[in-house]
Amino acid sequence: MGVDAVFKPRSVAVIGASARRGSIGYVIVKSLKDRFQGAVYPVNPKYREILGLKCYPRIEDVSGEVDIAVIAVPARIVPGVVSECGRKGVKAAIVISGGFKEAGEEGAKLEKMLVEEAAKYGIRILGPNCIGVYDTNTGLDTFFLPAIRCGRPKNGVISFISQSGAFAAAVMDQLTLLNFGISRCISYGNACDIDETDLIAYLRDDDRTKVITMYIETAKGGRRFIEEAYKTTRVKPIIAVKSGRTSRGASAVLSHTGSLAGSDRVFDSAFKQAGVIRAHDFQEMFDMAKALSMQPPARGNRILIVTDGGGAGVMAVDACEMNGLHVPELPENVKQELRKHFPPHVSVHNPIDLTGDVTDEWYGIALEVAGRSDIIDGVIVNVLFQPPKLTLRLTDVIADYARETDKPIVCCVWGGKVSEFLARDMDSQGVPSYPTPERAVKAMWALYKYGRIREM
Amino acid sequence: MGVDAVFKPRSVAVIGASARRGSIGYVIVKSLKDRFQGAVYPVNPKYREILGLKCYPRIEDVSGEVDIAVIAVPARIVPGVVSECGRKGVKAAIVISGGFKEAGEEGAKLEKMLVEEAAKYGIRILGPNCIGVYDTNTGLDTFFLPAIRCGRPKNGVISFISQSGAFAAAVMDQLTLLNFGISRCISYGNACDIDETDLIAYLRDDDRTKVITMYIETAKGGRRFIEEAYKTTRVKPIIAVKSGRTSRGASAVLSHTGSLAGSDRVFDSAFKQAGVIRAHDFQEMFDMAKALSMQPPARGNRILIVTDGGGAGVMAVDACEMNGLHVPELPENVKQELRKHFPPHVSVHNPIDLTGDVTDEWYGIALEVAGRSDIIDGVIVNVLFQPPKLTLRLTDVIADYARETDKPIVCCVWGGKVSEFLARDMDSQGVPSYPTPERAVKAMWALYKYGRIREM
Repeated sequence: MGVDAVFKPRSVAVIGASARRGSIGYVIVKSLKDRFQGAVYPVNPKYREILGLKCYPRIEDVSGEVDIAVIAVPARIVPGVVSECGRKGVKAAIVISGGFKEAGEEGAKLEKMLVEEAAKYGIRILGPNCIGVYDTNTGLDTFFLPAIRCGRPKNGVISFISQSGAFAAAVMDQLTLLNFGISRCISYGNACDIDETDLIAYLRDDDRTKVITMYIETAKGGRRFIEEAYKTTRVKPIIAVKSGRTSRGASAVLSHTGSLAGSDRVFDSAFKQAGVIRAHDFQEMFDMAKALSMQPPARGNRILIVTDGGGAGVMAVDACEMNGLHVPELPENVKQELRKHFPPHVSVHNPIDLTGDVTDEWYGIALEVAGRSDIIDGVIVNVLFQPPKLTLRLTDVIADYARETDKPIVCCVWGGKVSEFLARDMDSQGVPSYPTPERAVKAMWALYKYGRIREM
Repeated sequence: MGVDAVFKPRSVAVIGASARRGSIGYVIVKSLKDRFQGAVYPVNPKYREILGLKCYPRIEDVSGEVDIAVIAVPARIVPGVVSECGRKGVKAAIVISGGFKEAGEEGAKLEKMLVEEAAKYGIRILGPNCIGVYDTNTGLDTFFLPAIRCGRPKNGVISFISQSGAFAAAVMDQLTLLNFGISRCISYGNACDIDETDLIAYLRDDDRTKVITMYIETAKGGRRFIEEAYKTTRVKPIIAVKSGRTSRGASAVLSHTGSLAGSDRVFDSAFKQAGVIRAHDFQEMFDMAKALSMQPPARGNRILIVTDGGGAGVMAVDACEMNGLHVPELPENVKQELRKHFPPHVSVHNPIDLTGDVTDEWYGIALEVAGRSDIIDGVIVNVLFQPPKLTLRLTDVIADYARETDKPIVCCVWGGKVSEFLARDMDSQGVPSYPTPERAVKAMWALYKYGRIREM
């Protein structure tokens, strides 16, 4: 069976289901009952009913077919439970339970038994020692933290995979706050069977995923990872945060996971060969992912900047140049055309500085006239919304341009509450927006970088 | 007269006051009427009253003393208005009007006349071509953008100075959204008289300012700037963003201000000599300013990291090492003491990883036991709030520790709505908090860096 069993279940059994409010087995049953699109079967000999759902003593007592099992019982009985799942014909199991390899020698033995049992029946295993899957497409949600502590983002086209369950939870919580959309979030824990490479390979063909993001500390299979990732980056971008970059960081990975962090140089080289974009931190990763999920890659590195704040334009130019993007002078005919539309104090160089007299229409004109130029590969719009003539219609003006061009465009809307509101509106119209020029530039860099990667 | 006239006015005249809603002269009168602590005198021969305040035809008609004048009339009549102010005994004028040096040769002549008139009467000039002052101590507010476009931050101890008015407005708007406190924000425009060096020298002795932040593109007086800034950094930190770092950026400065951007290398060296901390961008500048306004400088670079998310700890270690901070192994006796309090799966290395079983009290114990060690100069607490036993009392536990130690502490609270709420509470209790480990580390770096600068 393939990994896809995890992502297309019609029915889920929760082994270790519980009626005790706040417990792991309770939160999982509750989430599934509320949102999962298929049948949910709680399993626990202690209960006859949980949250109004019939509860079964053992998985073999469930009358219907069970596609996947979520296992949240003490480690020592997990191998036995996996056998029972096998006899029931379960295709995949998400093992939430901890107490395996990460807990020492005894746990490592249990993990070996678990793997052997699963192999007997051809069951694919995600975990153990993980928080599993949050999938906005199927409603599968094994994150056992209640929503008040760990928000659940809305549906989107970005998937996130993470060894660390704590990170997966914190990131989902933060993305909810940021109004970010997620397709599938997968924490794979000890990776006794399904690992990051399997997940990348699955997500490559998943039409609900446009961009793959990942957090890793260590990775098992070097050559296989590079091959599968390379095949994947031919069709969609992968962005990774890898920690343990410094030697002190690597020794902290050892205390954290009991595994050696891969040499950072080796990882860097693997990422390069595979066409994986490496992000410095999570903020940068999701900034880039947002751009890549909304905009086409850039064909080259020549960027037009349009702004109404001269200083903001300068900062964007600096950030472009420092990231290997070029801000070329505009051709004389384009400048002449621009001069026809604007008063003399508007600067028709690149950046185009529309000044504090700016109107919504001026942005539209600048984008139409200069954005069309064939010496431009991508556009950064850098809005300060304080000038008095700008209105809330500005986002439509920018989005209209974005819809008509095949060049990528990103936006910086810099300011307070109203700017935040405008940025959200831009996002919802498919123009990725950021609160600082530097972050907008890094997002544009990712669009350029992915264009290059695709040509590899 | 010194620059301080601008900051301690008992009375303000607004020359160019207007009753036309939304106009510059209207917004300024309205802000002053609402919040300025002294007398406000609108001046405009067209009106007898504005917003319920008596309006005077000329400044000389005002019966009371006028400490400062805010001038918002067409450039060509500004020199004459300044003479009138001189005859009235005004000590300083904030010239909002544009159309001077930045507008070409004719404007440069007007600016020269303005300077000459001011010199005759010993009036200090801020501007022209600026948005002036937003001062939360006196209520002076000449920012002519209504609050719906440009939020006004609450009172705080950080001051911000900026050539660019557009930047000053955008930054105030953003800081309002971030619930950030500001003491005085000053946009000095063309700097025909008062420049960044005067302002730094003033703010050095200003007991309402604990940290000075600044944005500059160009600077007039190299040697004088270094001397005054050096004297200032003996008593309080200065953090600067300077744009025009790249050659393309510098040429964009030329189109923006008509001035040559100082060579970036020259600036870097001047900042170093003066002990000015250079920030990469605004986010970083205000992250650092927050830490420096709340916490003491660090005596050394040896950092303790306490977390409940192993991966988050690793990321903090990486960020520390890459910023020249060291994360030392804890002494054996400290580890032994920690082991007494925690179950075996808690890692008592540095980072201390309290794991998902963490309680509020565990944080308290880890901070007490390890934070006390004399091999530690500063503490970074890296909270993932998703684990179920953590409660809202956690912020008190951390703040209690912070109050009792003389070592600096910064916090990362990473997640969604609840984490944001916790971070705000930490801020209000004097523990600067950030949404990512990398930003928390950079803030700690600033505390270390300023400790070094003070020893210069």
